[in-house]
Amino acid sequence: MRQIIILFLFFNSILNAQYLLPQPQEYNLLQGKFKITEEIKVRIPNSSEDLYQYTSRFIERMQYKSGIIFKTHEPQDTSTSKEIVIITNKFSENLDLETNESYSINISSSSIKITSENNVGAYRAMETLLQLINTDKGEAFFINCNIIDKPRFKWRGLLVDVCRHWIPLDIIKRNIDAMASVKMNVLHLHLTDDQGFRIESKKFPKLHEMGSDGKYYTQNEIKDIIKYANERGVRVVPEFDIPGHISSWLVGYPKLASIDQNYELPKGYGVFKATLNPSQDFTYRFLDTLLTEMCLLFPDKYFHIGGDEILVNDWNKNKKIQRYKDKYMLTSNKDLHAHFNKKILSILSRNKKIMMGWDDIYNPKLPNSITVQFWRSKESLFNAAKNGYNSILSNGYYLDKVNRIENYYKNTPLPKGNSLTEQEQKMILGGEATMWTEIVNYRTIESRIWPSALAIAERLWSNDKECNIDTLYKKIPIISSQLEEFGLMHLNCQGVMLRMLSRNSVID
Amino acid sequence: MRQIIILFLFFNSILNAQYLLPQPQEYNLLQGKFKITEEIKVRIPNSSEDLYQYTSRFIERMQYKSGIIFKTHEPQDTSTSKEIVIITNKFSENLDLETNESYSINISSSSIKITSENNVGAYRAMETLLQLINTDKGEAFFINCNIIDKPRFKWRGLLVDVCRHWIPLDIIKRNIDAMASVKMNVLHLHLTDDQGFRIESKKFPKLHEMGSDGKYYTQNEIKDIIKYANERGVRVVPEFDIPGHISSWLVGYPKLASIDQNYELPKGYGVFKATLNPSQDFTYRFLDTLLTEMCLLFPDKYFHIGGDEILVNDWNKNKKIQRYKDKYMLTSNKDLHAHFNKKILSILSRNKKIMMGWDDIYNPKLPNSITVQFWRSKESLFNAAKNGYNSILSNGYYLDKVNRIENYYKNTPLPKGNSLTEQEQKMILGGEATMWTEIVNYRTIESRIWPSALAIAERLWSNDKECNIDTLYKKIPIISSQLEEFGLMHLNCQGVMLRMLSRNSVID
Repeated sequence: MRQIIILFLFFNSILNAQYLLPQPQEYNLLQGKFKITEEIKVRIPNSSEDLYQYTSRFIERMQYKSGIIFKTHEPQDTSTSKEIVIITNKFSENLDLETNESYSINISSSSIKITSENNVGAYRAMETLLQLINTDKGEAFFINCNIIDKPRFKWRGLLVDVCRHWIPLDIIKRNIDAMASVKMNVLHLHLTDDQGFRIESKKFPKLHEMGSDGKYYTQNEIKDIIKYANERGVRVVPEFDIPGHISSWLVGYPKLASIDQNYELPKGYGVFKATLNPSQDFTYRFLDTLLTEMCLLFPDKYFHIGGDEILVNDWNKNKKIQRYKDKYMLTSNKDLHAHFNKKILSILSRNKKIMMGWDDIYNPKLPNSITVQFWRSKESLFNAAKNGYNSILSNGYYLDKVNRIENYYKNTPLPKGNSLTEQEQKMILGGEATMWTEIVNYRTIESRIWPSALAIAERLWSNDKECNIDTLYKKIPIISSQLEEFGLMHLNCQGVMLRMLSRNSVID
Repeated sequence: MRQIIILFLFFNSILNAQYLLPQPQEYNLLQGKFKITEEIKVRIPNSSEDLYQYTSRFIERMQYKSGIIFKTHEPQDTSTSKEIVIITNKFSENLDLETNESYSINISSSSIKITSENNVGAYRAMETLLQLINTDKGEAFFINCNIIDKPRFKWRGLLVDVCRHWIPLDIIKRNIDAMASVKMNVLHLHLTDDQGFRIESKKFPKLHEMGSDGKYYTQNEIKDIIKYANERGVRVVPEFDIPGHISSWLVGYPKLASIDQNYELPKGYGVFKATLNPSQDFTYRFLDTLLTEMCLLFPDKYFHIGGDEILVNDWNKNKKIQRYKDKYMLTSNKDLHAHFNKKILSILSRNKKIMMGWDDIYNPKLPNSITVQFWRSKESLFNAAKNGYNSILSNGYYLDKVNRIENYYKNTPLPKGNSLTEQEQKMILGGEATMWTEIVNYRTIESRIWPSALAIAERLWSNDKECNIDTLYKKIPIISSQLEEFGLMHLNCQGVMLRMLSRNSVID
């Protein structure tokens, strides 16, 4: 009987130790365990400010998760007997697509060793370690193991639409923490849309002043978000959606419009007719100044210009635009859009940016230096890859559509048996969960992102053979509740809102 | 039977309508109700930017609490048939102790009228209204009534110690929201103590750089807190605790100390020996520069200099200090402390501030222009009032001591049958709940403040005859859960922390 109990406890522990999300590429359990005691020190022989700070937070979080208060709270630089050592030699000054995120972890009974090529790999390793903490019968420990891990896809993103409903800074920040904890690495901020221009422009202040209800990020707040994200190994890619989805711009600058009239901020949702006028110098000069301002603000190499859902009614109505098409021998509005995008591309190239847009901008008339985000179909993703365009998958990752988790999970950018060559497969950079906010606001957004985005996080990091839907469903409640440590309200918001509504009754 | 049900519903509604905290001075129920519909508009005939913003938030919160989405979200300036009208003529530029917070509310079946002398009274009225929303059988409504209300005490404060454990900005802000919702009006920030100097000084940067673990408010963040608080009718009073509780200052500036040695930030808690040296010009020049810097940063008229728990060991050890005492004929260390405080008083007076300190500074040798906060006993509060000193009660309001709510509630600054004349009673300005943070941190602080501080909020606003412990215990669960709308974690933090600790199990 005693043996059975011991066996049970052992398997139980192994099972617990398996609750890693995303699942590492290689994970080998060993005999024995590393007991977490108050004597533990964390050593970084070769550190940077960011790595030191990440490690300090790691130490604090380890204490909360283990219930053990350490004697030494600061990372050390000299060796001790019972230690977690973080060995990394490079420090990425600027995060980019090529930043190496690989790491290995060796847990033995006496020490834990994290090895990574650079600081970002060390961040990923620390998140894995935090998921590996076991508590049982008043004891906290790691089960000995070796882990070798690296991401399958380089781009593992989350889009947050801060236009339809405003999302305050602190909610963005805690979701960056959540992303980093499951190794997502791109925050795509959808900053402008019909309903709001949500970022301060010093060049054209009427954009945010008249193009919003007063809720927008100042440039200092944007710098704060970028710093916060980068310190956690998360890039920030801005989106300025042009030439459609543009009503908010036109409230302050109606001369940009295809039809010169008064514009108001729309209150409802849908696809609106307002478009930029692509036939006038004024539009391009304006965009040159604005985009250059924003290229300087956002250090990331990628710059997203939207480009989706353009209604051409106003283009067709404006005779100057028709004459412009004739002049440049543009036989369709699709060609006019490509012509417009080429001009934007030259602005962004001058600013050393890679232009990125929704699949509506995908057109063989544009060079394959652009990156395309596919939201309408997956087939065209393969098509683009064959034509040498880098691409991102978002089709099937729409969090606002409230799919079942298994549907998000099944959806891989590169399914088995696809028709792409190895070289073509490399053109597919990864994917992005998209959180459009027509039907969520700051109180409910987190309950829509999480835990669904966990499935996408694992799919984009782990190899297909590590992805198992039954295991995922076991992991979700554990990992989802771990996100609460950052202040996320995805689990609590329902109760909070019910209590707001039902002043008269106690809601449990 | 039907009549009984109707009667029951009616009394049930009356009962619900009674869940106001703090209880208003006069509250008369009338027949009928004002139904909340999507047609409702809120009108402010005479507005200011702050009042407009407060009202906008009020409109948003009304929708959450009623479940009714209004057609018009912005405050209006022209009359409509179904309206809430806010009539106020004055707008306080600078909040102070004399800011009039009185208001009246008249709810009839067709309209709701708020009348107040100035914008702050209107804020208080809106909070009362939000507590009065009833939801029942898919309907939301107010029961008709007249309310005439004003505070009993002018000073209804909450002290937050951000030194022993660091409390981040966003937690301070949401607690300001909570304070305003129960009509508390002073946030007392305890900014310096042995364990940390938690505010940026541009004049002496080693104070925050060496005197903290890197966690402090920048001056911009302080401005942000003050603006946020003032917009909600909450004053911010800073405390710089001198000449004891001073270790953190001495890490960067050891020459300020009574014993010139190296100082480190203490890791534990208790009363430490380190004191400022009151016998040297250097100390006073330093304080003059620093306090002048801080007087400019904080617009409030009151400036708190702490002054508590001075251990005189180091004063006794230093011969220069002994000679200084002889020179000025100071026969005791108490006299030396009073001498020191007189010099600080002259610095603060030059900066047009009212000096405030803990009861340790209370000394007939100081003029009665100072204000004293009594933490050690209530008797000396009356004594001070008789001697013409303004005073604040904190004795009995220590939230860190985890008293029963009824003990906080019973504790009134002016109990019935006290021996003070009417004039002397006016010297007692109010009280302050104190949240010392030795044994709470940013994760647990809210569960210690709330709901206990609700009892103190009601005691300081309402007349004694409106304070009833049985009613209070009925109100607490309702009002406490209402605070969650601001993001407070006082109810949820226990579950969150248990889930952090117990990765392996699901904690309900």
